[in-house]
Amino acid sequence: MRGGDSDLFFAVLPVAEARARLFSHYQPSPLAREEVELGQALGRVTAEAVLATEDVPPFARSTVDGFALRAADTFGASEGLPAFLALGEDIPMGKAAERKIAPGQGARIATGGMLPPGADAVVMVEYSEPIDEKTVAVLGPVAPGENVIRRGEDIAAHSQLLPAGHTLRPADIGALAALGRTRVWVRRPPKVGIISTGDEIVPPEVEPSPGQIRDINSYSLWAAVTAAGGEPVYLGLARDEAAAVRAKVLAGLKGCDLVLLSGGSSVGPRDVAAQVLTELGPPGVLVHGVALRPGKPLLIALCQGKPVFGLPGHPVSVLTTFDLFVRPTLQLLLGQRPVPQAKLRARLRRSLSSAPGREEHIRVRLEEGKDGLWAQPVLGKSGLITTLVAAQGTIIIPLEKEGLTAGAEVEVYLL
Amino acid sequence: MRGGDSDLFFAVLPVAEARARLFSHYQPSPLAREEVELGQALGRVTAEAVLATEDVPPFARSTVDGFALRAADTFGASEGLPAFLALGEDIPMGKAAERKIAPGQGARIATGGMLPPGADAVVMVEYSEPIDEKTVAVLGPVAPGENVIRRGEDIAAHSQLLPAGHTLRPADIGALAALGRTRVWVRRPPKVGIISTGDEIVPPEVEPSPGQIRDINSYSLWAAVTAAGGEPVYLGLARDEAAAVRAKVLAGLKGCDLVLLSGGSSVGPRDVAAQVLTELGPPGVLVHGVALRPGKPLLIALCQGKPVFGLPGHPVSVLTTFDLFVRPTLQLLLGQRPVPQAKLRARLRRSLSSAPGREEHIRVRLEEGKDGLWAQPVLGKSGLITTLVAAQGTIIIPLEKEGLTAGAEVEVYLL
Repeated sequence: MRGGDSDLFFAVLPVAEARARLFSHYQPSPLAREEVELGQALGRVTAEAVLATEDVPPFARSTVDGFALRAADTFGASEGLPAFLALGEDIPMGKAAERKIAPGQGARIATGGMLPPGADAVVMVEYSEPIDEKTVAVLGPVAPGENVIRRGEDIAAHSQLLPAGHTLRPADIGALAALGRTRVWVRRPPKVGIISTGDEIVPPEVEPSPGQIRDINSYSLWAAVTAAGGEPVYLGLARDEAAAVRAKVLAGLKGCDLVLLSGGSSVGPRDVAAQVLTELGPPGVLVHGVALRPGKPLLIALCQGKPVFGLPGHPVSVLTTFDLFVRPTLQLLLGQRPVPQAKLRARLRRSLSSAPGREEHIRVRLEEGKDGLWAQPVLGKSGLITTLVAAQGTIIIPLEKEGLTAGAEVEVYLL
Repeated sequence: MRGGDSDLFFAVLPVAEARARLFSHYQPSPLAREEVELGQALGRVTAEAVLATEDVPPFARSTVDGFALRAADTFGASEGLPAFLALGEDIPMGKAAERKIAPGQGARIATGGMLPPGADAVVMVEYSEPIDEKTVAVLGPVAPGENVIRRGEDIAAHSQLLPAGHTLRPADIGALAALGRTRVWVRRPPKVGIISTGDEIVPPEVEPSPGQIRDINSYSLWAAVTAAGGEPVYLGLARDEAAAVRAKVLAGLKGCDLVLLSGGSSVGPRDVAAQVLTELGPPGVLVHGVALRPGKPLLIALCQGKPVFGLPGHPVSVLTTFDLFVRPTLQLLLGQRPVPQAKLRARLRRSLSSAPGREEHIRVRLEEGKDGLWAQPVLGKSGLITTLVAAQGTIIIPLEKEGLTAGAEVEVYLL
């Protein structure tokens, strides 16, 4: 008997420590930048701060339909004692408002129109009354600046519109257009090599013989890398032999920024991967096992200055360890600032127990009840990809906790 | 004086009623389907339920390193009185396990190995003790099925893996690979025509003359359509004249599934859009104003059987009304089942007042404090795109509420 747990010979680390160990050895510069058209910029990460080169709007604009005027002319005005303004020509849309507004004068203006020289406010048409073609009565006082967007009020010239490391959303892209920036400098996507290992694995298009199963992880990782802003590179399958694994990892190190190996949940292949990654150091293997379920047999290595992750073979473990370790690595390479993570609060439908000493990630189905949102654990072995397919989110039982009781409030991280 | 509010002549509808009016007139069939490779399937929406054509795994597999055996042989075993099993050849990985396990026999098996005929469970190597090359002692009872994934336990042949209308995530793509499905039928993306209107609008690459401003909305809408799974079609700028707007809308109706007009926040252009969309009915304009801020001047029409949205001109109003009305329309065309919406709970940093009778959407910055998450309102006119750029989320003050007090718990919808 080897002891109560086959992994006792690993120095199993808590998740945060494992991450800290990787990032104490690995502090890369962000990747090279590339310029893309705005139409291709959604979800990309800015490579530099974007400074405004001009004021937006480039002139003071009305936010309402009404009359441009000098606010001081309306002070003290009321319905009983209106301020009368002499009207000049209407202010044209899309052209310069050139005629100066002198004291006692006004001009009809539409929403978005340019405030003419001399004017400092706009009265809404609803708070005015036409007297004749040339005169309007203003029925109350208007404050300076009222119903006006000042020049540069949206974006001031020389101010910072976006920091470096910002993930571009639709509004950010609109703001770049407002500045006339039809191209933007972003980080190139990190290239992520993907290798599945295992003598029993065949590509999905192959009919498996008895004892063989189809490769799941290359495909789920391809999509996970894409969703995280990376560029997946399929490196194919490797048999559970040091030479085969080494050749694939070396190919990945040559062309990619980091390499993902998946498979090898049994001791033999796990040892093969650890051996290969140790030989490809220094430093080689940094982390060999994390206090995490699913995902305990994770290997994290640094080979030729690039991270190599030996993800466990089970499909659920693969995606759990991707989220916890690979995604933060991609964020580092992209120089990406933290983005708020989507989570919902729900109540737990049934009690869950957990072994203390490991962080447990449990997949849940969300059920909207009359009494709020409930999280129903989707139980099943971590080898079952359908436990993820059936789930909408994940809850975490921290290291030190022994479980959660039914009805407890939990945070659900959306998948 | 025209009355207290220039929009009083609209029949302003609450958001839910406006949506209901659109969807009572507009009940399209989902769009045509197309087949895509798994590598292109992320975020696409299934066009049909995916039924399993085979069992996954196709044979019973071990989930641990250990010995395959007949559970009944171990009943009553203990450290003091182990069950002794005669070992045959090791079970090879990736090949059929052909040698039958007879009573009193066992075979060494690795994680992922195929359970041989006769065996119904696996004992972990840690709960066994080697006696000699040909004999192992099992130190405790093993239950039938223990440490085994049954044939079809992940996905059973003929069961439904995914429903129609499912938005594909990495795990779903992995599960399709497990079934050998390297291509999947999804809905084609809805084509969304985008038109910006306004005499003052110039394309972003043009240096605006006095009185002119650059087109923001075509670009933010392009990205919003892409993020929602649609295919944006840029139709260009239209002057505020019925003939120009009509020509662009007709071009959009010809090639697209729906059309977005933005701009025209002043009465004149708004009337032009309403006139054109009325003429292109029946039914033409269905909704003319919603009890919403920002976004009140929204027009929703149905022309030649296709939805046309007259979005307000202000950039923030455009994205707010997109989320509330255009996105659900795209979901309908995609036949997309509801996806949980990302939101966080936070406390409000300062009090907010709101006019009752309209639903108010307020942009907030998220601030992580020692005492939890705080939502800091980003105030500013709805014409200011930077209020969105500076925000991470939106909170909603419902129709009937007059405001929210500082410290109140709010739900923040992530941008």
